[in-house]
Amino acid sequence: MQTLQIIKIGGDIINHELKLKQFISMISEIKTAMILVHGGGKLLDQLASRLGIEQQMVDGRRVTDAATLELASMVYAGGINKKIVALCQSQGLHALGLSGADNNCLQAQQRKIGENDFGFVGDINKEGVNSKFISLLLSNDIMPVFCSITHDNQGQLFNTNADTLASVIAQSMSSFYDVKLIYCFEKNGVLRNIDDEESVIPSINTNEYKTLQQEGIISKGMIPKLDNAFDAIQSGVQKVTIMHALHILKNNQDESNVGTKISL
Amino acid sequence: MQTLQIIKIGGDIINHELKLKQFISMISEIKTAMILVHGGGKLLDQLASRLGIEQQMVDGRRVTDAATLELASMVYAGGINKKIVALCQSQGLHALGLSGADNNCLQAQQRKIGENDFGFVGDINKEGVNSKFISLLLSNDIMPVFCSITHDNQGQLFNTNADTLASVIAQSMSSFYDVKLIYCFEKNGVLRNIDDEESVIPSINTNEYKTLQQEGIISKGMIPKLDNAFDAIQSGVQKVTIMHALHILKNNQDESNVGTKISL
Repeated sequence: MQTLQIIKIGGDIINHELKLKQFISMISEIKTAMILVHGGGKLLDQLASRLGIEQQMVDGRRVTDAATLELASMVYAGGINKKIVALCQSQGLHALGLSGADNNCLQAQQRKIGENDFGFVGDINKEGVNSKFISLLLSNDIMPVFCSITHDNQGQLFNTNADTLASVIAQSMSSFYDVKLIYCFEKNGVLRNIDDEESVIPSINTNEYKTLQQEGIISKGMIPKLDNAFDAIQSGVQKVTIMHALHILKNNQDESNVGTKISL
Repeated sequence: MQTLQIIKIGGDIINHELKLKQFISMISEIKTAMILVHGGGKLLDQLASRLGIEQQMVDGRRVTDAATLELASMVYAGGINKKIVALCQSQGLHALGLSGADNNCLQAQQRKIGENDFGFVGDINKEGVNSKFISLLLSNDIMPVFCSITHDNQGQLFNTNADTLASVIAQSMSSFYDVKLIYCFEKNGVLRNIDDEESVIPSINTNEYKTLQQEGIISKGMIPKLDNAFDAIQSGVQKVTIMHALHILKNNQDESNVGTKISL
Protein backbone atom coordinates (compact mmCIF):
# COMPACT_ATOMS: atom_id res chain seq x y z
CA MET A 1 0.00 0.00 0.00
CA GLN A 2 1.00 3.62 -0.55
CA THR A 3 2.14 5.66 2.44
CA LEU A 4 -0.15 8.39 3.77
CA GLN A 5 1.03 10.76 6.49
CA ILE A 6 -1.68 12.36 8.61
CA ILE A 7 -0.22 15.31 10.47
CA LYS A 8 -2.01 17.08 13.29
CA ILE A 9 -0.74 20.58 14.07
CA GLY A 10 -1.71 22.44 17.18
CA GLY A 11 -1.90 25.93 18.57
CA ASP A 12 1.80 26.56 18.99
CA ILE A 13 2.41 26.47 15.23
CA ILE A 14 -0.85 28.18 14.30
CA ASN A 15 -0.30 31.09 16.67
CA HIS A 16 3.12 31.95 15.24
CA GLU A 17 3.12 33.09 11.62
CA LEU A 18 6.84 32.48 11.20
CA LYS A 19 6.77 28.97 12.68
CA LEU A 20 3.74 28.14 10.53
CA LYS A 21 5.58 29.24 7.38
CA GLN A 22 8.66 27.26 8.44
CA PHE A 23 6.55 24.17 9.10
CA ILE A 24 4.74 24.39 5.75
CA SER A 25 8.01 24.94 3.94
CA MET A 26 9.28 21.77 5.63
CA ILE A 27 6.32 19.57 4.75
CA SER A 28 6.45 20.79 1.15
CA GLU A 29 9.59 18.61 0.88
CA ILE A 30 7.73 15.45 1.91
CA LYS A 31 7.01 13.23 -1.08
CA THR A 32 4.30 10.93 0.31
CA ALA A 33 0.57 11.67 0.28
CA MET A 34 -0.42 13.86 3.23
CA ILE A 35 -3.42 15.09 5.17
CA LEU A 36 -3.21 18.02 7.60
CA VAL A 37 -5.51 18.41 10.59
CA HIS A 38 -5.38 21.62 12.55
CA GLY A 39 -6.78 22.87 15.82
CA GLY A 40 -7.70 26.39 16.72
CA GLY A 41 -4.95 27.94 18.72
CA LYS A 42 -5.62 31.05 20.73
CA LEU A 43 -7.52 32.88 18.01
CA LEU A 44 -10.95 31.69 19.13
CA ASP A 45 -10.29 32.82 22.71
CA GLN A 46 -8.96 36.16 21.47
CA LEU A 47 -11.96 36.80 19.23
CA ALA A 48 -14.44 35.67 21.92
CA SER A 49 -12.78 37.99 24.39
CA ARG A 50 -12.90 40.95 21.97
CA LEU A 51 -16.59 40.28 21.38
CA GLY A 52 -17.35 39.76 25.05
CA ILE A 53 -18.54 36.19 24.49
CA GLU A 54 -17.65 34.42 27.69
CA GLN A 55 -15.98 31.03 27.33
CA GLN A 56 -16.94 28.32 29.77
CA MET A 57 -14.49 25.50 30.39
CA VAL A 58 -15.25 22.18 32.11
CA ASP A 59 -12.19 20.11 33.06
CA GLY A 60 -10.11 22.12 30.60
CA ARG A 61 -12.59 21.50 27.77
CA ARG A 62 -14.58 24.18 26.03
CA VAL A 63 -18.36 24.34 26.31
CA THR A 64 -19.58 25.25 22.81
CA ASP A 65 -22.76 27.31 23.01
CA ALA A 66 -24.40 28.65 19.83
CA ALA A 67 -22.41 31.90 19.82
CA THR A 68 -19.13 30.05 20.37
CA LEU A 69 -19.94 27.56 17.61
CA GLU A 70 -20.43 30.43 15.18
CA LEU A 71 -17.06 31.87 16.16
CA ALA A 72 -15.42 28.43 15.92
CA SER A 73 -16.81 27.97 12.42
CA MET A 74 -15.49 31.39 11.39
CA VAL A 75 -12.08 31.07 13.02
CA TYR A 76 -11.33 27.41 12.29
CA ALA A 77 -12.98 26.85 8.88
CA GLY A 78 -12.40 30.39 7.63
CA GLY A 79 -9.53 32.37 9.12
CA ILE A 80 -7.05 29.68 10.12
CA ASN A 81 -7.91 27.09 7.47
CA LYS A 82 -7.63 29.49 4.55
CA LYS A 83 -4.41 31.00 5.87
CA ILE A 84 -2.87 27.51 6.04
CA VAL A 85 -4.23 26.54 2.62
CA ALA A 86 -2.93 29.73 0.95
CA LEU A 87 0.52 29.21 2.51
CA CYS A 88 0.55 25.56 1.38
CA GLN A 89 -0.38 26.58 -2.16
CA SER A 90 2.44 29.13 -2.20
CA GLN A 91 4.83 26.25 -1.40
CA GLY A 92 3.52 24.05 -4.20
CA LEU A 93 1.32 21.86 -2.01
CA HIS A 94 -2.08 21.28 -3.61
CA ALA A 95 -3.97 21.98 -0.42
CA LEU A 96 -7.75 21.86 -0.14
CA GLY A 97 -9.37 23.14 3.04
CA LEU A 98 -12.25 21.13 4.46
CA SER A 99 -14.70 21.16 7.31
CA GLY A 100 -16.63 18.03 8.13
CA ALA A 101 -19.72 19.44 6.42
CA ASP A 102 -17.97 19.70 3.06
CA ASN A 103 -19.20 16.78 0.98
CA ASN A 104 -20.09 15.12 4.29
CA CYS A 105 -16.42 14.47 5.03
CA LEU A 106 -16.80 14.06 8.77
CA GLN A 107 -20.17 13.14 10.20
CA ALA A 108 -20.49 13.35 13.97
CA GLN A 109 -23.13 13.05 16.69
CA GLN A 110 -23.80 15.74 19.24
CA ARG A 111 -22.29 14.74 22.56
CA LYS A 112 -24.97 13.43 24.91
CA ILE A 113 -25.61 15.48 28.02
CA GLY A 114 -24.10 13.52 30.87
CA GLU A 115 -22.51 15.05 33.96
CA ASN A 116 -21.89 18.11 31.80
CA ASP A 117 -23.53 19.70 28.78
CA PHE A 118 -20.82 20.60 26.30
CA GLY A 119 -23.31 22.14 23.87
CA PHE A 120 -22.51 21.86 20.17
CA VAL A 121 -19.64 19.43 20.55
CA GLY A 122 -19.60 16.55 18.09
CA ASP A 123 -18.23 13.08 18.77
CA ILE A 124 -17.06 11.05 15.83
CA ASN A 125 -15.71 7.59 15.12
CA LYS A 126 -14.06 6.15 12.03
CA GLU A 127 -17.44 5.24 10.46
CA GLY A 128 -18.17 8.99 10.21
CA VAL A 129 -15.19 9.59 7.91
CA ASN A 130 -15.93 9.86 4.15
CA SER A 131 -12.86 7.86 3.16
CA LYS A 132 -14.09 7.43 -0.41
CA PHE A 133 -14.05 11.17 -1.04
CA ILE A 134 -10.75 11.66 0.79
CA SER A 135 -9.24 8.91 -1.38
CA LEU A 136 -10.56 10.66 -4.50
CA LEU A 137 -8.74 13.83 -3.46
CA LEU A 138 -5.50 12.00 -2.61
CA SER A 139 -5.53 10.10 -5.89
CA ASN A 140 -5.75 13.47 -7.66
CA ASP A 141 -2.64 14.71 -5.84
CA ILE A 142 -4.68 16.95 -3.53
CA MET A 143 -3.77 17.41 0.15
CA PRO A 144 -6.85 17.72 2.40
CA VAL A 145 -6.48 20.26 5.21
CA PHE A 146 -9.11 19.60 7.88
CA CYS A 147 -10.28 22.05 10.49
CA SER A 148 -11.99 20.74 13.59
CA ILE A 149 -15.58 21.50 12.56
CA THR A 150 -17.89 18.54 11.91
CA HIS A 151 -21.63 18.24 11.24
CA ASP A 152 -24.53 15.82 11.69
CA ASN A 153 -25.65 15.82 8.02
CA GLN A 154 -28.92 17.38 9.23
CA GLY A 155 -27.71 20.98 8.98
CA GLN A 156 -26.03 21.29 12.38
CA LEU A 157 -22.32 22.07 12.69
CA PHE A 158 -20.25 20.89 15.67
CA ASN A 159 -16.97 21.70 17.32
CA THR A 160 -14.86 18.52 17.53
CA ASN A 161 -11.51 17.83 19.15
CA ALA A 162 -8.79 18.01 16.47
CA ASP A 163 -6.70 15.23 18.03
CA THR A 164 -9.72 12.93 17.84
CA LEU A 165 -10.34 13.92 14.21
CA ALA A 166 -6.77 13.09 13.25
CA SER A 167 -7.13 9.72 14.96
CA VAL A 168 -10.45 8.73 13.31
CA ILE A 169 -9.30 9.93 9.87
CA ALA A 170 -6.15 7.82 10.31
CA GLN A 171 -8.20 4.81 11.41
CA SER A 172 -10.53 5.11 8.45
CA MET A 173 -7.81 5.68 5.85
CA SER A 174 -5.73 2.74 7.12
CA SER A 175 -7.99 0.43 5.06
CA PHE A 176 -6.54 1.99 1.91
CA TYR A 177 -3.12 3.33 2.87
CA ASP A 178 -0.14 2.53 5.00
CA VAL A 179 -0.97 5.34 7.46
CA LYS A 180 1.50 7.22 9.64
CA LEU A 181 -0.20 9.47 12.18
CA ILE A 182 1.93 12.27 13.57
CA TYR A 183 0.82 14.46 16.45
CA CYS A 184 2.90 17.62 16.24
CA PHE A 185 3.11 19.97 19.17
CA GLU A 186 5.55 22.32 20.91
CA LYS A 187 7.44 19.66 22.86
CA ASN A 188 9.99 17.11 21.69
CA GLY A 189 7.67 14.23 22.54
CA VAL A 190 6.02 12.77 25.62
CA LEU A 191 8.35 13.89 28.40
CA ARG A 192 9.21 12.02 31.57
CA ASN A 193 9.86 15.39 33.19
CA ILE A 194 7.74 18.15 31.69
CA ASP A 195 10.49 20.73 32.37
CA ASP A 196 13.19 18.77 30.58
CA GLU A 197 12.97 18.60 26.77
CA GLU A 198 15.72 15.98 26.83
CA SER A 199 13.53 13.57 28.83
CA VAL A 200 11.57 12.30 25.81
CA ILE A 201 10.15 8.82 26.33
CA PRO A 202 11.18 7.19 23.02
CA SER A 203 8.32 4.69 22.90
CA ILE A 204 5.23 3.76 24.90
CA ASN A 205 3.21 0.59 24.55
CA THR A 206 -0.23 -0.08 26.03
CA ASN A 207 1.11 -1.57 29.26
CA GLU A 208 3.72 1.12 29.74
CA TYR A 209 1.01 3.73 29.17
CA LYS A 210 -0.98 2.32 32.10
CA THR A 211 2.08 2.31 34.33
CA LEU A 212 3.08 5.87 33.35
CA GLN A 213 -0.41 7.04 34.25
CA GLN A 214 -0.37 5.19 37.57
CA GLU A 215 3.01 6.75 38.36
CA GLY A 216 1.60 10.20 37.53
CA ILE A 217 4.34 10.73 34.92
CA ILE A 218 1.83 11.28 32.14
CA SER A 219 -0.14 14.32 33.19
CA LYS A 220 -3.79 15.20 32.74
CA GLY A 221 -3.41 17.27 29.57
CA MET A 222 -1.52 14.55 27.70
CA ILE A 223 -4.03 11.78 28.47
CA PRO A 224 -6.68 12.68 25.84
CA LYS A 225 -3.96 13.04 23.18
CA LEU A 226 -2.45 9.69 24.10
CA ASP A 227 -5.86 8.04 24.26
CA ASN A 228 -6.42 9.18 20.65
CA ALA A 229 -2.96 7.94 19.71
CA PHE A 230 -3.60 4.50 21.24
CA ASP A 231 -7.06 4.31 19.62
CA ALA A 232 -5.32 4.78 16.28
CA ILE A 233 -2.58 2.19 16.79
CA GLN A 234 -5.13 -0.31 18.12
CA SER A 235 -7.30 0.22 15.02
CA GLY A 236 -4.72 -0.65 12.40
CA VAL A 237 -2.83 2.61 11.90
CA GLN A 238 0.70 1.56 11.00
CA LYS A 239 2.69 4.11 13.01
CA VAL A 240 1.80 6.80 15.52
CA THR A 241 4.31 9.39 16.71
CA ILE A 242 4.07 12.37 19.05
CA MET A 243 6.76 14.94 18.30
CA HIS A 244 7.87 18.53 17.89
CA ALA A 245 6.33 20.11 14.77
CA LEU A 246 9.65 21.41 13.50
CA HIS A 247 11.22 17.94 13.65
CA ILE A 248 8.84 16.75 10.95
CA LEU A 249 11.55 16.39 8.29
CA LYS A 250 13.96 14.67 10.63
CA ASN A 251 11.15 12.18 11.25
CA ASN A 252 11.01 11.52 7.51
CA GLN A 253 14.75 11.11 7.16
CA ASP A 254 15.44 8.97 10.19
CA GLU A 255 12.44 7.27 11.64
CA SER A 256 13.73 5.86 14.85
CA ASN A 257 15.05 8.84 16.74
CA VAL A 258 12.36 11.49 16.82
CA GLY A 259 9.60 12.01 19.36
CA THR A 260 7.61 9.34 21.14
CA LYS A 261 6.52 6.27 19.22
CA ILE A 262 3.22 4.68 20.25
CA SER A 263 3.00 0.91 19.99
CA LEU A 264 0.58 -1.88 20.88
CA MET B 1 -22.91 19.32 -23.69
CA GLN B 2 -24.33 18.82 -20.21
CA THR B 3 -26.14 21.71 -18.55
CA LEU B 4 -24.44 23.48 -15.62
CA GLN B 5 -26.28 26.11 -13.63
CA ILE B 6 -24.12 28.66 -11.82
CA ILE B 7 -26.20 30.44 -9.22
CA LYS B 8 -25.05 33.58 -7.42
CA ILE B 9 -26.88 34.33 -4.17
CA GLY B 10 -26.60 37.64 -2.40
CA GLY B 11 -27.08 39.22 0.97
CA ASP B 12 -30.83 39.14 1.08
CA ILE B 13 -30.92 35.34 1.16
CA ILE B 14 -27.85 34.96 3.33
CA ASN B 15 -29.10 37.35 5.99
CA HIS B 16 -32.39 35.50 6.50
CA GLU B 17 -32.06 31.98 7.86
CA LEU B 18 -35.59 31.03 6.81
CA LYS B 19 -35.24 32.32 3.24
CA LEU B 20 -31.87 30.59 2.96
CA LYS B 21 -33.42 27.27 4.02
CA GLN B 22 -36.30 27.80 1.59
CA PHE B 23 -33.89 28.59 -1.24
CA ILE B 24 -31.71 25.54 -0.56
CA SER B 25 -34.75 23.32 -0.32
CA MET B 26 -35.80 24.66 -3.75
CA ILE B 27 -32.47 24.09 -5.48
CA SER B 28 -32.30 20.57 -4.05
CA GLU B 29 -35.04 19.77 -6.60
CA ILE B 30 -32.91 20.88 -9.54
CA LYS B 31 -31.49 17.93 -11.43
CA THR B 32 -28.70 19.58 -13.47
CA ALA B 33 -25.15 20.08 -12.26
CA MET B 34 -24.87 23.25 -10.14
CA ILE B 35 -22.34 25.64 -8.66
CA LEU B 36 -23.27 28.15 -5.96
CA VAL B 37 -21.45 31.44 -5.47
CA HIS B 38 -22.27 33.53 -2.43
CA GLY B 39 -21.50 37.01 -1.23
CA GLY B 40 -21.18 38.21 2.32
CA GLY B 41 -24.37 39.84 3.36
CA LYS B 42 -24.41 42.09 6.38
CA LEU B 43 -22.44 39.77 8.62
CA LEU B 44 -19.07 41.28 7.82
CA ASP B 45 -20.32 44.79 8.62
CA GLN B 46 -21.93 43.55 11.82
CA LEU B 47 -18.78 41.77 13.00
CA ALA B 48 -16.55 44.72 12.04
CA SER B 49 -18.83 47.04 13.96
CA ARG B 50 -18.80 44.82 17.07
CA LEU B 51 -15.00 44.70 16.92
CA GLY B 52 -14.66 48.42 16.26
CA ILE B 53 -12.92 47.85 12.92
CA GLU B 54 -13.98 50.83 10.85
CA GLN B 55 -15.09 50.07 7.30
CA GLN B 56 -14.08 52.49 4.58
CA MET B 57 -16.19 52.63 1.43
CA VAL B 58 -15.21 54.29 -1.86
CA ASP B 59 -18.03 54.69 -4.40
CA GLY B 60 -20.02 52.07 -2.51
CA ARG B 61 -17.17 49.57 -2.62
CA ARG B 62 -15.37 48.26 0.42
CA VAL B 63 -11.71 49.06 1.05
CA THR B 64 -10.18 45.81 2.33
CA ASP B 65 -7.36 46.54 4.77
CA ALA B 66 -5.52 43.69 6.52
CA ALA B 67 -7.93 43.57 9.49
CA THR B 68 -10.97 43.57 7.19
CA LEU B 69 -9.47 40.82 5.01
CA GLU B 70 -9.05 38.64 8.08
CA LEU B 71 -12.69 39.22 9.00
CA ALA B 72 -13.81 38.58 5.40
CA SER B 73 -11.91 35.29 5.35
CA MET B 74 -13.55 34.26 8.63
CA VAL B 75 -17.08 35.38 7.76
CA TYR B 76 -17.22 34.37 4.08
CA ALA B 77 -15.06 31.20 3.97
CA GLY B 78 -15.97 30.06 7.49
CA GLY B 79 -19.25 31.24 8.97
CA ILE B 80 -21.43 31.75 5.90
CA ASN B 81 -19.89 29.13 3.64
CA LYS B 82 -20.10 26.32 6.18
CA LYS B 83 -23.65 27.24 7.15
CA ILE B 84 -24.71 27.02 3.49
CA VAL B 85 -22.79 23.79 2.94
CA ALA B 86 -24.29 22.12 6.03
CA LEU B 87 -27.81 23.15 4.96
CA CYS B 88 -27.19 21.85 1.43
CA GLN B 89 -25.96 18.53 2.80
CA SER B 90 -29.07 18.23 4.95
CA GLN B 91 -31.13 18.54 1.74
CA GLY B 92 -29.18 15.85 -0.07
CA LEU B 93 -27.00 18.21 -2.12
CA HIS B 94 -23.37 17.07 -2.13
CA ALA B 95 -22.02 20.52 -1.41
CA LEU B 96 -18.33 21.32 -1.04
CA GLY B 97 -17.33 24.75 0.22
CA LEU B 98 -14.41 26.44 -1.49
CA SER B 99 -12.38 29.61 -1.33
CA GLY B 100 -10.17 30.55 -4.23
CA ALA B 101 -7.11 29.35 -2.32
CA ASP B 102 -8.42 25.80 -2.07
CA ASN B 103 -6.54 23.77 -4.66
CA ASN B 104 -5.87 27.07 -6.41
CA CYS B 105 -9.48 27.28 -7.58
CA LEU B 106 -9.53 31.01 -8.18
CA GLN B 107 -6.27 32.83 -8.74
CA ALA B 108 -6.50 36.62 -8.74
CA GLN B 109 -4.20 39.65 -8.87
CA GLN B 110 -4.26 42.41 -6.29
CA ARG B 111 -6.04 45.45 -7.70
CA LYS B 112 -3.52 48.06 -8.79
CA ILE B 113 -3.56 51.32 -6.88
CA GLY B 114 -5.17 53.85 -9.20
CA GLU B 115 -7.30 56.76 -8.08
CA ASN B 116 -8.09 54.67 -5.01
CA ASP B 117 -6.30 52.00 -3.04
CA PHE B 118 -8.77 49.21 -2.33
CA GLY B 119 -6.22 47.22 -0.32
CA PHE B 120 -6.49 43.45 -0.47
CA VAL B 121 -9.03 43.30 -3.27
CA GLY B 122 -8.35 40.73 -5.97
CA ASP B 123 -9.30 41.04 -9.62
CA ILE B 124 -9.79 37.87 -11.59
CA ASN B 125 -10.54 36.82 -15.16
CA LYS B 126 -11.53 33.44 -16.57
CA GLU B 127 -7.90 32.33 -16.93
CA GLY B 128 -7.68 32.37 -13.11
CA VAL B 129 -10.38 29.69 -12.74
CA ASN B 130 -9.20 26.12 -12.14
CA SER B 131 -11.82 24.60 -14.45
CA LYS B 132 -10.08 21.23 -14.48
CA PHE B 133 -10.55 20.79 -10.75
CA ILE B 134 -14.10 22.15 -10.82
CA SER B 135 -14.92 19.66 -13.59
CA LEU B 136 -13.46 16.84 -11.48
CA LEU B 137 -15.82 17.78 -8.65
CA LEU B 138 -18.86 18.08 -10.93
CA SER B 139 -18.15 14.75 -12.58
CA ASN B 140 -18.16 13.20 -9.11
CA ASP B 141 -21.62 14.63 -8.40
CA ILE B 142 -20.23 17.30 -6.07
CA MET B 143 -21.67 20.84 -6.00
CA PRO B 144 -18.98 23.50 -5.44
CA VAL B 145 -20.06 26.36 -3.14
CA PHE B 146 -17.74 29.31 -3.64
CA CYS B 147 -17.26 32.18 -1.24
CA SER B 148 -15.80 35.43 -2.52
CA ILE B 149 -12.25 34.94 -1.23
CA THR B 150 -9.48 34.47 -3.81
CA HIS B 151 -5.69 34.32 -3.58
CA ASP B 152 -2.55 35.04 -5.62
CA ASN B 153 -1.00 31.56 -5.22
CA GLN B 154 1.85 33.29 -3.33
CA GLY B 155 0.20 33.06 0.08
CA GLN B 156 -1.94 36.21 -0.07
CA LEU B 157 -5.73 36.03 0.21
CA PHE B 158 -7.99 38.64 -1.42
CA ASN B 159 -11.54 39.86 -1.15
CA THR B 160 -13.20 39.62 -4.59
CA ASN B 161 -16.60 40.71 -5.83
CA ALA B 162 -18.94 37.69 -5.81
CA ASP B 163 -20.82 38.81 -8.97
CA THR B 164 -17.50 38.92 -10.82
CA LEU B 165 -16.55 35.47 -9.51
CA ALA B 166 -19.82 33.99 -10.74
CA SER B 167 -19.21 35.56 -14.15
CA VAL B 168 -15.63 34.36 -14.59
CA ILE B 169 -16.46 30.85 -13.32
CA ALA B 170 -19.33 30.73 -15.85
CA GLN B 171 -17.05 31.96 -18.63
CA SER B 172 -14.39 29.38 -17.82
CA MET B 173 -16.82 26.46 -17.44
CA SER B 174 -18.61 27.27 -20.71
CA SER B 175 -15.81 25.44 -22.56
CA PHE B 176 -17.03 22.20 -21.00
CA TYR B 177 -20.71 22.75 -20.18
CA ASP B 178 -23.81 24.40 -21.51
CA VAL B 179 -23.70 27.08 -18.78
CA LYS B 180 -26.66 28.98 -17.41
CA LEU B 181 -25.63 31.84 -15.12
CA ILE B 182 -28.29 33.06 -12.70
CA TYR B 183 -27.88 36.17 -10.58
CA CYS B 184 -30.34 35.83 -7.71
CA PHE B 185 -31.24 38.81 -5.61
CA GLU B 186 -34.18 40.30 -3.71
CA LYS B 187 -35.92 41.84 -6.72
CA ASN B 188 -37.93 40.22 -9.50
CA GLY B 189 -35.36 41.24 -12.11
CA VAL B 190 -33.92 44.43 -13.56
CA LEU B 191 -36.71 46.93 -12.90
CA ARG B 192 -37.71 49.85 -15.10
CA ASN B 193 -39.02 51.52 -11.93
CA ILE B 194 -37.12 50.47 -8.83
CA ASP B 195 -40.25 50.88 -6.67
CA ASP B 196 -42.41 48.65 -8.87
CA GLU B 197 -41.68 44.92 -8.73
CA GLU B 198 -44.03 44.47 -11.70
CA SER B 199 -41.81 46.63 -13.93
CA VAL B 200 -39.33 43.85 -14.73
CA ILE B 201 -37.53 44.38 -18.03
CA PRO B 202 -37.88 40.89 -19.57
CA SER B 203 -34.72 41.05 -21.65
CA ILE B 204 -31.82 43.40 -22.29
CA ASN B 205 -29.33 43.17 -25.14
CA THR B 206 -26.06 45.08 -25.45
CA ASN B 207 -27.57 48.03 -27.33
CA GLU B 208 -30.57 48.27 -25.03
CA TYR B 209 -28.19 48.22 -22.06
CA LYS B 210 -26.42 51.30 -23.39
CA THR B 211 -29.73 53.09 -23.94
CA LEU B 212 -31.04 52.15 -20.48
CA GLN B 213 -27.89 53.58 -18.92
CA GLN B 214 -28.12 56.77 -20.95
CA GLU B 215 -31.75 57.18 -19.92
CA GLY B 216 -30.74 56.69 -16.28
CA ILE B 217 -33.17 53.80 -15.94
CA ILE B 218 -30.44 51.42 -14.88
CA SER B 219 -29.02 52.87 -11.69
CA LYS B 220 -25.52 52.94 -10.31
CA GLY B 221 -25.78 49.86 -8.11
CA MET B 222 -27.02 47.63 -10.92
CA ILE B 223 -24.26 48.60 -13.38
CA PRO B 224 -21.46 46.40 -11.98
CA LYS B 225 -23.85 43.42 -11.80
CA LEU B 226 -24.99 43.95 -15.38
CA ASP B 227 -21.43 44.49 -16.58
CA ASN B 228 -20.59 41.07 -15.14
CA ALA B 229 -23.69 39.59 -16.75
CA PHE B 230 -22.77 41.02 -20.18
CA ASP B 231 -19.14 39.89 -19.80
CA ALA B 232 -20.49 36.37 -19.35
CA ILE B 233 -22.88 36.37 -22.30
CA GLN B 234 -20.20 37.91 -24.53
CA SER B 235 -17.73 35.18 -23.52
CA GLY B 236 -19.81 32.19 -24.53
CA VAL B 237 -22.06 31.61 -21.53
CA GLN B 238 -25.27 30.18 -22.97
CA LYS B 239 -27.83 31.99 -20.84
CA VAL B 240 -27.66 34.74 -18.23
CA THR B 241 -30.65 35.69 -16.07
CA ILE B 242 -31.11 38.18 -13.24
CA MET B 243 -34.02 37.20 -11.01
CA HIS B 244 -35.55 36.81 -7.58
CA ALA B 245 -33.86 34.04 -5.59
CA LEU B 246 -37.14 32.39 -4.65
CA HIS B 247 -38.20 32.13 -8.32
CA ILE B 248 -35.35 29.73 -9.00
CA LEU B 249 -37.62 26.72 -9.52
CA LYS B 250 -40.06 28.61 -11.72
CA ASN B 251 -37.03 29.46 -13.84
CA ASN B 252 -36.35 25.75 -14.26
CA GLN B 253 -39.93 24.91 -15.11
CA ASP B 254 -40.69 27.69 -17.54
CA GLU B 255 -37.66 29.43 -18.89
CA SER B 256 -39.14 32.36 -20.69
CA ASN B 257 -41.09 34.19 -18.03
CA VAL B 258 -38.85 34.79 -15.05
CA GLY B 259 -36.55 37.71 -14.34
CA THR B 260 -34.45 39.63 -16.84
CA LYS B 261 -32.70 37.72 -19.61
CA ILE B 262 -29.37 39.12 -20.82
CA SER B 263 -28.59 38.70 -24.50
CA LEU B 264 -25.94 39.78 -27.02
